[in-house]
Amino acid sequence: MTVVGRARNSQGNGPASQQDMRRRNLSVVLGAVAAHNPLTRPLSRADVAVRVGLTRAAVSSLVDELIGRGALTEAETAPDGRVGRPGRALSVRDQGPAGLGLEIGVTHLAACVVDLRGEPRVWRRVERANAGRPAGEVLAATAELAAAAEAEARGLGLSVEGRVLAVPGVVPNEPAGRVERAPNLGWHTVGVADHWPDPDTAPEPENEANLGALAEYWNAEQAVETFVHVSADAGIGAALVIDGQVFRGARGFAGELGHIPVHPDGIRCACGARGCLEQYAGQAAVLREAGLTPPCPGPAGSVAAGDPAAGDPVALLAERAGAGHAPTLAALDRAGRALGLALASAVELIDPDGLVLGGTYAELAEWLLPSVRAELAERVTVRPWAPAALRPSALGRRGPVLGAAQTTIRRIMADPTLLPVG
Amino acid sequence: MTVVGRARNSQGNGPASQQDMRRRNLSVVLGAVAAHNPLTRPLSRADVAVRVGLTRAAVSSLVDELIGRGALTEAETAPDGRVGRPGRALSVRDQGPAGLGLEIGVTHLAACVVDLRGEPRVWRRVERANAGRPAGEVLAATAELAAAAEAEARGLGLSVEGRVLAVPGVVPNEPAGRVERAPNLGWHTVGVADHWPDPDTAPEPENEANLGALAEYWNAEQAVETFVHVSADAGIGAALVIDGQVFRGARGFAGELGHIPVHPDGIRCACGARGCLEQYAGQAAVLREAGLTPPCPGPAGSVAAGDPAAGDPVALLAERAGAGHAPTLAALDRAGRALGLALASAVELIDPDGLVLGGTYAELAEWLLPSVRAELAERVTVRPWAPAALRPSALGRRGPVLGAAQTTIRRIMADPTLLPVG
Repeated sequence: MTVVGRARNSQGNGPASQQDMRRRNLSVVLGAVAAHNPLTRPLSRADVAVRVGLTRAAVSSLVDELIGRGALTEAETAPDGRVGRPGRALSVRDQGPAGLGLEIGVTHLAACVVDLRGEPRVWRRVERANAGRPAGEVLAATAELAAAAEAEARGLGLSVEGRVLAVPGVVPNEPAGRVERAPNLGWHTVGVADHWPDPDTAPEPENEANLGALAEYWNAEQAVETFVHVSADAGIGAALVIDGQVFRGARGFAGELGHIPVHPDGIRCACGARGCLEQYAGQAAVLREAGLTPPCPGPAGSVAAGDPAAGDPVALLAERAGAGHAPTLAALDRAGRALGLALASAVELIDPDGLVLGGTYAELAEWLLPSVRAELAERVTVRPWAPAALRPSALGRRGPVLGAAQTTIRRIMADPTLLPVG
Repeated sequence: MTVVGRARNSQGNGPASQQDMRRRNLSVVLGAVAAHNPLTRPLSRADVAVRVGLTRAAVSSLVDELIGRGALTEAETAPDGRVGRPGRALSVRDQGPAGLGLEIGVTHLAACVVDLRGEPRVWRRVERANAGRPAGEVLAATAELAAAAEAEARGLGLSVEGRVLAVPGVVPNEPAGRVERAPNLGWHTVGVADHWPDPDTAPEPENEANLGALAEYWNAEQAVETFVHVSADAGIGAALVIDGQVFRGARGFAGELGHIPVHPDGIRCACGARGCLEQYAGQAAVLREAGLTPPCPGPAGSVAAGDPAAGDPVALLAERAGAGHAPTLAALDRAGRALGLALASAVELIDPDGLVLGGTYAELAEWLLPSVRAELAERVTVRPWAPAALRPSALGRRGPVLGAAQTTIRRIMADPTLLPVG
């Protein structure tokens, strides 16, 4: 059964309680141990007390509880020749609690299991054409992949405590567990648990752009706290990360960058409006403008990511652009200009510290960045804007499934009482 | 001396303490008393204990502290013929702690004092042309107005605990107390305290759009939690309210709606870019398009708000539109279309529950709303969007100065320990 579900808000507006305090301090202690690099030197309970500003007695009680819940482990340190009694070293466990991330893409399924340190331990990816197929069938295939990934994780001593599924669609805030609309899959109002073999292990769906953005934030070398993450695949999505949290909007629809009007009287979009960004910078639009028509993937998984010969359209664009193919270069320049226009609106409205080009855009960044930067430089003039604030994602297409897996770990770190007492 | 300064973050990432708990519970109790309508029936300590879910002993201790800090008062209730001992009724004081709001507009200065219940008790407004005049001179005049408003408040038994100044410009998150840029005043990098006669009473500057939005949120009959508030005066600003808080952006520049590119190859803007919203929906653009040229206000305050004969440009537009003047109607329609385009981008990105037309737009709403609604209906198609989610502000031009005054009160409500012990 899934222990770690959607965020429990332990703050709220009610009075503060001793339990709230305990929960927060468990989180503070677990965070302090996680932030320590175990390769530098052992971390003792006394060290933790100094770092977090609680008494040694309080920290010891919190550490005992975290060990009991399977989050921490405490080992005898090897004698190192120094004077004094042998120490004991705390670390976050690399066995036990884990998070499963799943992803349904237009042409693939993916799974990832991370341990409590956030480290990926299991990666699986299956190329598979999912567009236009019944949601139940796609979810059944995803459940098979999930079961295989969990079995592999069990073999590593990991126990999955929460499951999150990245989907290229809109997941409203309410009701939970439902994909409202995933146009590139052809889904409308799909309840994930309704199609999952065992409802107890049904994953919680989340928009892939949001998860990609969180992965970027959680795994970046130097994270900025407030940024816009563009997540292109077949469509264009974006996520707003504000102070390290995804802002989902009043109903969960925030970040629909693909339907920003960049040319108000321009090309008619499938959504009914004119001049949406997706008509200039979406994958289909760029391929069309470049005069390229990759073979349609068959239903049995004939497209492999990163292989232009096997019909991966992004790899094809990168290959042609790299070879100096003029129509492809012009198409990417036009896409970059349109993307720059839409991002200028985002910068004016949101004032982010950074803009990240993620998903498939990360693989095309070499050709997109110059025109996006040029457009931003022309448009964003009433506030300081550094060209370096726009950068490609280091995670690219792997972001969403990694973010899905790490979501469970982040919830546990914020509230270790989500873990059962051992 | 100003007791209530910029937000103290009592949450942070450190461990939770007993003091944090006490502070939060003081706030919860004060909030419960403030939420009670004293006209219905007296509110006792026991009633509060039931409402907030704390023990009667805990509530009594918290109430004693709130009385000591001058936030609450407890009166003997008049005998009402019921059996039992006479009760005692708690209420938020209408004397004592107060907040001063100030505003510098392009053609006026304003001041407002609110009591701890949030009720305005002093209103002052002076018509005065401020554009292009030295910041020091404008701030000296503002300080005079502030002193007069505080003197009037003292006569009512009110004691100003915090001062906030609404300015039509960008106020960065850091450093505090500085207006970075107020183009319609001609200000660049103005430190308010540097020009204030007594630095101890220097107000904290804040963007007027942000304060107008907060006023809307705090005073609305039925507030939505997440909305975009457009605040037009000489320029066009906007504020994003997210879960009841203004989102200021990474540096304090969020909400620059006036520079959203609505026609990428359109009219050149003063900012250097092309096709900014302000070139289509700004006051100067609408007047130009309508063929109207109101007399320029002289330096000695010749323009009175709401008086078209005295040169108030918004009143002039409303008068002409009301009289069916075709060029004015066409100019407002064009402005509404452009505003609708920019707001469509905001809706796609932010997914707000509502859009509010504030500032001078509130007075022109009758003529703007139809074209803004039409544009939104055409553009926002991938999410549900109700026409009624767009509405004019009830506060209009009074919003920012009211929000400035209430800011201090909201801070006290969130942390009553900001008040000195009596």
